[in-house]
Amino acid sequence: MEDSLFSRDIAAAQNIANPTTFLEPDESLLQVRDWFRSQPNLEARFGQVLRQSIDEVLDGQRTGRFSVEDLEKTEKTYLGTKVEIIARAEFNLSRGEKMDFSVSGHDVDSKFTSAKNWTIPGEADGHICLLIRANDLTANYQVGLLRIRDALLNLGANRDGKRTPSAAGRGAIQWIIPEGKLPENTLLNLSDADRKAIFGAGSSGQARTNELFRRVQGRLVNRNTVLTVARQDDSLKRVRDARHHLRNEGIMILGHQKQHPHIARALDLRVPDKGSWIAIRVARAEEFGPTRRSTQISGQNYALWRAGDSPEPAPTEY
Amino acid sequence: MEDSLFSRDIAAAQNIANPTTFLEPDESLLQVRDWFRSQPNLEARFGQVLRQSIDEVLDGQRTGRFSVEDLEKTEKTYLGTKVEIIARAEFNLSRGEKMDFSVSGHDVDSKFTSAKNWTIPGEADGHICLLIRANDLTANYQVGLLRIRDALLNLGANRDGKRTPSAAGRGAIQWIIPEGKLPENTLLNLSDADRKAIFGAGSSGQARTNELFRRVQGRLVNRNTVLTVARQDDSLKRVRDARHHLRNEGIMILGHQKQHPHIARALDLRVPDKGSWIAIRVARAEEFGPTRRSTQISGQNYALWRAGDSPEPAPTEY
Repeated sequence: MEDSLFSRDIAAAQNIANPTTFLEPDESLLQVRDWFRSQPNLEARFGQVLRQSIDEVLDGQRTGRFSVEDLEKTEKTYLGTKVEIIARAEFNLSRGEKMDFSVSGHDVDSKFTSAKNWTIPGEADGHICLLIRANDLTANYQVGLLRIRDALLNLGANRDGKRTPSAAGRGAIQWIIPEGKLPENTLLNLSDADRKAIFGAGSSGQARTNELFRRVQGRLVNRNTVLTVARQDDSLKRVRDARHHLRNEGIMILGHQKQHPHIARALDLRVPDKGSWIAIRVARAEEFGPTRRSTQISGQNYALWRAGDSPEPAPTEY
Repeated sequence: MEDSLFSRDIAAAQNIANPTTFLEPDESLLQVRDWFRSQPNLEARFGQVLRQSIDEVLDGQRTGRFSVEDLEKTEKTYLGTKVEIIARAEFNLSRGEKMDFSVSGHDVDSKFTSAKNWTIPGEADGHICLLIRANDLTANYQVGLLRIRDALLNLGANRDGKRTPSAAGRGAIQWIIPEGKLPENTLLNLSDADRKAIFGAGSSGQARTNELFRRVQGRLVNRNTVLTVARQDDSLKRVRDARHHLRNEGIMILGHQKQHPHIARALDLRVPDKGSWIAIRVARAEEFGPTRRSTQISGQNYALWRAGDSPEPAPTEY
């Protein structure tokens, strides 16, 4: 169905593919683009807007879900609304006169998809759309602008009369973030074996949390991941208790407090922010060779455990 | 449109209005009803499920909204999904084979409305539906069970082919909670004048929070209300700062910590749980008459302020 009318698309592409050559430049759209581009830390903030939106609709703490594919149809539709709400709050935008946002005095409609293409309702004709697409599996996202015109949409419509941008339409998008990095969805990126072990570790949220930190080491794990695994509301307590349970296996869980950031830096690990953690297995020795980073904890010398090291419990206090 | 075919409804009512007389008792449905009725603290828990669902979809902290009427259509649809998710978590239910819940081994579909009547899709025919209705304005809600049959639905269908229970259908509902009390939506229940004063108190979340506690006294105010007014994420800090700002006006804000519960009880106020507060204006005197409750705070005697009392600052420490 998509791009089915070949000759029609050629005609559209000739008019549209390079609008600055064939058409008047769309000054309003360029002002909207420039406003977004001038926002400090834009890519990280938009990535966080999308991470937060997806995580809130998945509602992992209550449902145990971590994949957009598990959302129901009404939830997928609502995800677009959630992105609009969180983006509006993050960038302190007001509502437009008729559309979702007012940006630099121009009405802008927000269109989100977690699939390949956006679905555009008839009412958007002639309006500037902020097109947002996120792929949680590949951890990337795109944000761009398109002023909707009939010639930029595929002919076929879905049941609700919505149409998708054609190849020519997609070619005419003014990109704001052509290739953004989405903060990682830890559970989605584990192997099936690890996921099965974690979610199958028992009916207790604590047992599943322990297995999470047994299996996911050297990588940041955030609060939402712990809540999704534990299905309980006190992630801090789950992590504290996991520290205790995993100590004899030599596993430490570093957070953002006390000497944890210092230990993480000394062992060349990423330093957790508030609400995230990194688990590691440690080995102990009087002295490690010059090629191994180590750090003093409670008067003992620790390094990351390697095959061949003797098993040691993690320090009691850190 | 509703109940338009008079003779048809009479016929339906004769068959259905008292199903235990005219039809076999629906044992499965009665088992589902009895399961819910056996849940400890059922009414308070269901009320909290609905309060939480509505508040999460309103997303007051980000949007400043406090009325279901301000939700968009996709959000109203999603509200039913959120009720289903939170109810499933609260009552520890699993999914049914084909329907939303499995209760006592029976498939049960969840149908929520914030309007007057439920909309039932064709797929529900023959199935047990948990019908949930909440009215935030009147602060009440109902929960009941109905096995969907053609004869219990009005003839007219909406655009999606969904139909509403007829008068006979509504008469056949087995009520689980015929008249539940929804936890109060504080902002929805204020006068227009108070609301305007609070939301118009300035662009700073703190100024709006101060006005909230100036205007709403002697009533519990919860975390969500503070977040909706402040549009910021640290409700505890907003309340702490409001205490400081309002001290010279004689206003105290009691929470659940320190001697606050003791003060609340001594002054015959409701005692705030964690995450809720109660503001009061106090007066100070060496001794109050025998008809006035008072309490010692930092060595001084305080009572609730009454017209005629001299204005006094609230205690510095409490």
